[in-house]
Amino acid sequence: MEKIVIAIDTMGTDNGSAYFVQGIAEAMDLYDDLSFIVTGKEEELKTYIDQYGCDKTRIEVVDATEEITCHDAPVDAIRRKKNSSMVLALNAVKEGRAAACISGGNSGALLAGGQFLVGRAKGVKRTPLAPLIPHRYGSSLLIDCGANVDAKPENLVQFAKMGSIYMKNIEGIENPRVGIINIGAEDEKGNELVKSTIPLLRECKDINFIGSVESRDIPNGPADVLVCEAFVGNVLLKFFEGLGKMFMAEIKDTLKSSVKTKIGGALIYKPIKKTFKRYMADDKGGAPLLGLKGLVVKIHGNSKDTEVRSAIEQCRNFVKKDVTNQIIRTFVEEENKGEN
Amino acid sequence: MEKIVIAIDTMGTDNGSAYFVQGIAEAMDLYDDLSFIVTGKEEELKTYIDQYGCDKTRIEVVDATEEITCHDAPVDAIRRKKNSSMVLALNAVKEGRAAACISGGNSGALLAGGQFLVGRAKGVKRTPLAPLIPHRYGSSLLIDCGANVDAKPENLVQFAKMGSIYMKNIEGIENPRVGIINIGAEDEKGNELVKSTIPLLRECKDINFIGSVESRDIPNGPADVLVCEAFVGNVLLKFFEGLGKMFMAEIKDTLKSSVKTKIGGALIYKPIKKTFKRYMADDKGGAPLLGLKGLVVKIHGNSKDTEVRSAIEQCRNFVKKDVTNQIIRTFVEEENKGEN
Repeated sequence: MEKIVIAIDTMGTDNGSAYFVQGIAEAMDLYDDLSFIVTGKEEELKTYIDQYGCDKTRIEVVDATEEITCHDAPVDAIRRKKNSSMVLALNAVKEGRAAACISGGNSGALLAGGQFLVGRAKGVKRTPLAPLIPHRYGSSLLIDCGANVDAKPENLVQFAKMGSIYMKNIEGIENPRVGIINIGAEDEKGNELVKSTIPLLRECKDINFIGSVESRDIPNGPADVLVCEAFVGNVLLKFFEGLGKMFMAEIKDTLKSSVKTKIGGALIYKPIKKTFKRYMADDKGGAPLLGLKGLVVKIHGNSKDTEVRSAIEQCRNFVKKDVTNQIIRTFVEEENKGEN
Repeated sequence: MEKIVIAIDTMGTDNGSAYFVQGIAEAMDLYDDLSFIVTGKEEELKTYIDQYGCDKTRIEVVDATEEITCHDAPVDAIRRKKNSSMVLALNAVKEGRAAACISGGNSGALLAGGQFLVGRAKGVKRTPLAPLIPHRYGSSLLIDCGANVDAKPENLVQFAKMGSIYMKNIEGIENPRVGIINIGAEDEKGNELVKSTIPLLRECKDINFIGSVESRDIPNGPADVLVCEAFVGNVLLKFFEGLGKMFMAEIKDTLKSSVKTKIGGALIYKPIKKTFKRYMADDKGGAPLLGLKGLVVKIHGNSKDTEVRSAIEQCRNFVKKDVTNQIIRTFVEEENKGEN
């Protein structure tokens, strides 16, 4: 049995390290092939490991004497805080001791660390952050939502290919539909970047490109992979989050507005909350940073055991399906073709 | 008493012309200083004018023998369909017979027609489409959501100024807060366009620039004017629309899911629907296309009498406050300063 080692950064989040250990314990019970390198406050972690009854032969604790917080400047933090839990976890991937790394800490620092420490896979020009966003009938991969803005058409084409490989292997979607986020349905619509990218995507024979997707249609799930430049992706992703919270808050206020709505509210609040939760939680794991030599997964800072366990499963799938090498093979083949 | 003439294009929408005439009738009753040039199907319009008892001395009907539909290519439609209701209404503004024009037709054609027929006001480099988007405590002007993408920093600075003038005069907000939509709170975050624009906005003494706004905060109303490039604005605006519909549809489904939720749903559905309606309707009028020699307002294709009346009030305010000339004065003064 192939052993899969996953590094987990347990600091820099809202909820402390207990949920991480709990998620690890759950994953250990489910999968015999997993073992872990856990970075964080050693004593605290050891207490939780005892508490959740983890198999200690499958978990290595690495003490972190520094912490990268949400206030740290990303690149600077990665360079200076060499003993932080995040850098220690990323280094485990860099040095080949772990195949993947999960963190709920400072997003910018994780993106920077992924690039600088783990490094880009051969042939990959840019490493996109690609969260799944829920729609009415499933989820779409929004690629790129990262920190590297002002992409070029060739970057977007690579995103489309990496996204397709991811959705096929991790979400089990055969021939994933790839759309490009645009301000109109026709090929001649869009900004310079989108208009230059569309013909390149139409030429790709290894993806199922369906054309432009207008943002108003995203909730209906017209594509499995939604390609966009990182500024646009980031703005869309955060607007989704903000609007979800706003509508939920408005519903709460409305239910409190009269005796009648209070009675009705008592009957429907839980199911409504559950419906909204589907749009806000990470039951599919975290957002993968694609195109690196190993997998880096960003989970929310307020993740609980379920999200941690989902992200672990996501990493396991990624490694078992050999997604990194599939990506490398795709781009190296292209480079070779280009050279002929 | 100064007379204000407003041109109204009654074709190219989902609901036909009756709601337009009804909205005009309501506005006529409220304001003695208004009169109208109405373009569309003459006979049909005359029937509705009788039906709603409009004062015929204050309404001129112009027969349109052509219609611009949502399937027409914008620029082409404006050039070829010279007898369409939209072109006739825009020409009324161009020729100075009307001060403003309202249309619910093809957005792209209206934007193109505004530029080609009405024309840019002196000193204005780009004419942005600037809808109000609702937040929890009011509304923000999202400027630009139009069709002219890939703006320059100087365009965004003009949007900030035009937006401030609009929000002060039309929404009555003293010293409107101006934010730029960005992917982080700090000045060094963003794409090239945003990073180049921020220092220019910080230098402007005639606006109240508060810095970057992340899209997740937009629902909390951190700024009265949200400056962005049109691709980003368009994508955000349409995502808002799509997500509003999606959450409403999810709520409907949830309320139908059990006997308990059906009972609760009967008590709360109307108030919830009302809450959501605030986020989807245009009780503040339509989206103004700013920086033209006259005002052009885009309303939704499914607008009813209330939205038409609101848009008329918006036009009346715009003219009475002399917003066009305020914009011209701002930019002409700047040009003169620049030349000294």
